[in-house]
Amino acid sequence: GVMRETGFWVSFKGDVYDFTDFLDGHPGLKTRLLMAGGKDLEPFWEVYGDHYRGHVIPWMAQFKIGRLSPADAKQSKNFQFPNSFEDDPKRHPDLLYNTAHPFNGEPKLERLTENYYTPNHLHYVRNHLPVPEIDPNEYELEVSGPGVKTTTFTLNDLKTKFKKYEVVTALQCAGNRREDFHGKDGKNIFIGPHWVVGAISNAKWAGPRLRDVLAFCGLDVDGMALGTVNPPNIKHVQFEGTDEDETGLNYGVSIPIDKAVDALGDCILAYEMNGVELPRDHGYPVRALVPGHAGARNCKWLERIVLADETSQKPWHIAAYRGFAPDISFEKDLYLWDNSPRVKLDQAMIVQEMPVTSMICNPPPNSVLKGKVDEITVKGVAWSGGGKGIARVDVSVDGGKTFTAADLIKPIEQRRNREWGWSQFEKTIKLPEEMAAKVRNGQSVDLELVSKAVSKSYDVQPENIAPYYNARGVCINHWYRVPVKIEPNRWKFASDRKQKGQDFHNKPTTGKFNSDWS
Amino acid sequence: GVMRETGFWVSFKGDVYDFTDFLDGHPGLKTRLLMAGGKDLEPFWEVYGDHYRGHVIPWMAQFKIGRLSPADAKQSKNFQFPNSFEDDPKRHPDLLYNTAHPFNGEPKLERLTENYYTPNHLHYVRNHLPVPEIDPNEYELEVSGPGVKTTTFTLNDLKTKFKKYEVVTALQCAGNRREDFHGKDGKNIFIGPHWVVGAISNAKWAGPRLRDVLAFCGLDVDGMALGTVNPPNIKHVQFEGTDEDETGLNYGVSIPIDKAVDALGDCILAYEMNGVELPRDHGYPVRALVPGHAGARNCKWLERIVLADETSQKPWHIAAYRGFAPDISFEKDLYLWDNSPRVKLDQAMIVQEMPVTSMICNPPPNSVLKGKVDEITVKGVAWSGGGKGIARVDVSVDGGKTFTAADLIKPIEQRRNREWGWSQFEKTIKLPEEMAAKVRNGQSVDLELVSKAVSKSYDVQPENIAPYYNARGVCINHWYRVPVKIEPNRWKFASDRKQKGQDFHNKPTTGKFNSDWS
Repeated sequence: GVMRETGFWVSFKGDVYDFTDFLDGHPGLKTRLLMAGGKDLEPFWEVYGDHYRGHVIPWMAQFKIGRLSPADAKQSKNFQFPNSFEDDPKRHPDLLYNTAHPFNGEPKLERLTENYYTPNHLHYVRNHLPVPEIDPNEYELEVSGPGVKTTTFTLNDLKTKFKKYEVVTALQCAGNRREDFHGKDGKNIFIGPHWVVGAISNAKWAGPRLRDVLAFCGLDVDGMALGTVNPPNIKHVQFEGTDEDETGLNYGVSIPIDKAVDALGDCILAYEMNGVELPRDHGYPVRALVPGHAGARNCKWLERIVLADETSQKPWHIAAYRGFAPDISFEKDLYLWDNSPRVKLDQAMIVQEMPVTSMICNPPPNSVLKGKVDEITVKGVAWSGGGKGIARVDVSVDGGKTFTAADLIKPIEQRRNREWGWSQFEKTIKLPEEMAAKVRNGQSVDLELVSKAVSKSYDVQPENIAPYYNARGVCINHWYRVPVKIEPNRWKFASDRKQKGQDFHNKPTTGKFNSDWS
Repeated sequence: GVMRETGFWVSFKGDVYDFTDFLDGHPGLKTRLLMAGGKDLEPFWEVYGDHYRGHVIPWMAQFKIGRLSPADAKQSKNFQFPNSFEDDPKRHPDLLYNTAHPFNGEPKLERLTENYYTPNHLHYVRNHLPVPEIDPNEYELEVSGPGVKTTTFTLNDLKTKFKKYEVVTALQCAGNRREDFHGKDGKNIFIGPHWVVGAISNAKWAGPRLRDVLAFCGLDVDGMALGTVNPPNIKHVQFEGTDEDETGLNYGVSIPIDKAVDALGDCILAYEMNGVELPRDHGYPVRALVPGHAGARNCKWLERIVLADETSQKPWHIAAYRGFAPDISFEKDLYLWDNSPRVKLDQAMIVQEMPVTSMICNPPPNSVLKGKVDEITVKGVAWSGGGKGIARVDVSVDGGKTFTAADLIKPIEQRRNREWGWSQFEKTIKLPEEMAAKVRNGQSVDLELVSKAVSKSYDVQPENIAPYYNARGVCINHWYRVPVKIEPNRWKFASDRKQKGQDFHNKPTTGKFNSDWS
């Protein structure tokens, strides 16, 4: 922008930093950084502990402009920053948390192949803000904008005025597997959460169709779906949630109008998840469900729908989920946001639909298979955004030198280009003869298990990560590599995954973290 | 199948071969191989010369069962096989031909960036059969099947009874870049044509919408597009062409019904190409245009449309364009077709939509840039099937070690997920300092130019070819690599591409053929 704040200072451990240039680029948003003006960061970071990952503080050094006296340093952090996450719900221990505030949790990977529908308590949770507490009797959803009569619906309205539709869809956070970029080839990720691999789940959702609610408010959804009506001022559907930050800014995103009015687009206002009311973490009492699109578009705790000619202007929409070219970095460019001369936002499309992906879930990384194993059964999940569906999953035990097709498991049928639900896969692979001979001779063998999915548009997963680096860490879909070991002289199948100092349980590609969490 | 022919013999150069097992697997179709029963192959191969590529005859050795006497050998080829391609149209010399019979030609790659719309005489041509000669006054198109009244349309009917729609779309053969697989890592491709890289072009087509024609015949296309009507016996639209082989079998394919009735699917019955009537090579007088789908589905010389509950059963539909897993080969498996225990056709989906791709067209491979060059301008084309559109193209001068985003050129606007037209791209890249220093010092420098496109569903092109090998050679979209040389001590920009013994002009990835054409 042209108007810029000047002289915006904060302190940390006695050092003073001038963050004026950084305001627009703060991944946790400008509003939150502004809260800290003239204050010490420490009380804030006691809540937002992800700042303590090792790369943040060294990066700040370039902005240091001086030091406070010990007395001033003490004084600058002499205030209370309330933890607004204290009323968040309790979570299941198999939901591994990447960040505590806001809560972002991914299930233990090997649990994803246990059921076609991920149980609610294991479904990954991506919160941007504290979980609001909403009284269902006071819940209201307002619909407004050009082409519709402003209308307010209660929860009961949504349940009784409209037909209930069931939609099976996988959801995936646009940033899933972000940890794979972090610490790789000296590159760092300055946006959270640092998902390891499990920010993907599959569930059956139910509620009225968004298009039926819009039609109720007067929108000619059939005409728009058939292309006979094209209102120039209705290009996007903006969603707003009840969840808000400490400054009162509430969550918001948008989706293209064509997805909303598409009679086969299956957007619903979900009040049920796997047959029960939504858990609080998943948007109780009502969330938007936009199958095939990035998780972030599926606005939780939905309280407002606005038709508009422009996308949502909320930072979660226009900034957080963009795919930049590999030569754009946070350190050189994005800390300045579009004040950087190298950043062209039209070369970093806002993520809506997501690419094809897959991951082997069983056996988990670093498993030890004990005994004279001569074949190995791999299981996993595969999905493509945009409803493309999965045409094939190829699996390998030799790091991708050879592949064979796995059997696909999808117990439901969905229309072409409306395949929102994931496919699970399974294959028992005979060891290549060279490995099998070693095992027979009592030698241990290291394997690298790999899967690669092919979508029904024949798009594929890329092999390596490096050429696809993007500073926001979105749409990451290179092969997930799972190292396992066969130890023929040990008895029984058992898993032995714990690595010293690495206790997150889930592992990034190759089974090892590129950089420490500390 | 259970019933199998037995004792099916042919001869070649005096050797007798038992091809009984091969009948179902013959890439040029069973009917054509049956023609040769008890005869010598040579008169047939005088027309179908692609059999003479080096890998075919050695592969046949395993089927040899004996030798003819010299007199019998002479007698066995004593017959005339007429060349039914003699009335094919003349083609432009910049349309490089991969096979003469049927004609399959790709434009010189560097011509694709000259215009957004590929001129008709340069648009790639993929014929499966001889080009029929159709009198426009006698042309008839019949529409039949469940849900419609059987109706016959003249060319004049199509031009006058329906609104004319213009659709801009790139077409690409599902087998484009097949040559990249051939001779690579000892693998061979046993299906033609061996496209090098140019089986992609972009044009503006015009004609009535397929859905309007179906509606005229009584189909409730709006109800089907809105999902309120779902006739279980109408799942596919089968197309048949007038073109036929020597046994009278005519071309046919099908598309899913949802694509045909989709009000925004833009399927038309095209009678115009870039503002003039269709050239004969492109289906004069009428072809199906199925934007976003593989070229083969865009049936030329369209004479019959049949709604059905099953796909076309023609071999061009159910056999030719399938993507098999990497461990399925022609030599081990596909020569037996689904009589091979390893071939599961449901693991090799019939290609409809195609994946994201791009290629640098300028400078062409093996170019020599003369003088003290310190930057290089690359131009190319990028496209994704399924109407996804191109979000970004990254380009590299160092073989993909570093990338930067190119500028996209698309002079038309198309709806989201309806971006049938390609994007062209251009970028002037400064040489990395290490290379620039060499050039300043008068040393020549070898560069490898690479592009990789990102579709708007964030699918990407894979880096390497090997893990994506498929025996039919379809949907090939790994990075196209263009070697060029800077020679600072030579004067002026000029291109110097001719390599000894390699006169096809267009080059596969890396600029070199893996195997000789001979």
